[in-house]
Amino acid sequence: MSLSELIKQNRSFRRFDQSFKIEEKTLRELIDLARYSASAANLQPLKYIISVDPAINERIFSCLAWAAYLKDWNGPEEGEKPTAYIVVMGDRSITDNFRCDHGIAAQSILLGAREIGLGGCMIASIHQRNLRSCLNIDPSHEVLLVIALGKPVEQVVLEQISADGNIRYWRDSNGVHHVPKRNLDQIIVSSYNCQA
Amino acid sequence: MSLSELIKQNRSFRRFDQSFKIEEKTLRELIDLARYSASAANLQPLKYIISVDPAINERIFSCLAWAAYLKDWNGPEEGEKPTAYIVVMGDRSITDNFRCDHGIAAQSILLGAREIGLGGCMIASIHQRNLRSCLNIDPSHEVLLVIALGKPVEQVVLEQISADGNIRYWRDSNGVHHVPKRNLDQIIVSSYNCQA
Repeated sequence: MSLSELIKQNRSFRRFDQSFKIEEKTLRELIDLARYSASAANLQPLKYIISVDPAINERIFSCLAWAAYLKDWNGPEEGEKPTAYIVVMGDRSITDNFRCDHGIAAQSILLGAREIGLGGCMIASIHQRNLRSCLNIDPSHEVLLVIALGKPVEQVVLEQISADGNIRYWRDSNGVHHVPKRNLDQIIVSSYNCQA
Repeated sequence: MSLSELIKQNRSFRRFDQSFKIEEKTLRELIDLARYSASAANLQPLKYIISVDPAINERIFSCLAWAAYLKDWNGPEEGEKPTAYIVVMGDRSITDNFRCDHGIAAQSILLGAREIGLGGCMIASIHQRNLRSCLNIDPSHEVLLVIALGKPVEQVVLEQISADGNIRYWRDSNGVHHVPKRNLDQIIVSSYNCQA
């Protein structure tokens, strides 16, 4: 699969086949992709907690807020919950400024997941205190993102943004999740192309 | 090529074949990869300026600081400079918090570049005032990163971090660029794997 295909298929998935188990080894392989990715000044301040343990997963799940734009939906129901989590932290003993390292890492991780038929979602809306307590997170480690993973069971389609500029994703009556994306010409503001 | 191979080959390159021209169309295709990538709350606040124009490239180049750890090197010499740039900005009229969107986008862009034999480097050490002036950047747009691109002419190798924990990259007498990476076991701090 080309990278372009992989990126297009790598949507933010929020409903999963909860009977599909993910192995710890798989999470380690995904973090290895992040490890090989760029880090500002090569500081590599990111640290990770991983879980494929159903009881711990349930506790992590209880610390997360899902899909803010879907007002009538409080997140995946039993049977459709994620079966693995990667908690992405910044180690303040290395630096106080993690810049966009967690974005680089999370993109590598989710592309890697998609390549093997998994999928997931980066979640930044986190009940920090509860999560820190339930995972015994070191005070020097800042929680930056939680990546929820599983075998997706929902269809996500991209669509062109409408004239009113509304970027809120929505779910239709068939449960299909629609995501409006800005056009290329709306995001490239200038182009200098005079070849000498 | 598998994603894992692509990520491993996608090093931060800083020396290029300056005779190799990159087309504007290629930059547009790379930004399309970023456009299809995740954005926090789907806000899509990132905007881009692209250049394949040698005169503009020279002005962008003059606003950048290169490879802070290589004290005797001020950046690529004439003949080895980047031949294209993507300036990644955050549009404050959309949000004030760009989270790690630029990391996600830049990783997609650089993986896409690597897939077609190009390479580059994310640069955050930027003379902001000069860059804003030379590219007429709108006051509402914050410059987050400059991605320098070209056809790489340097060899970059990864190596295991040494016992002293020094993460500074270095260049050997053959011009090979060495990048120490932390081990997987140094970055995964806990793993919960009790399968029910």
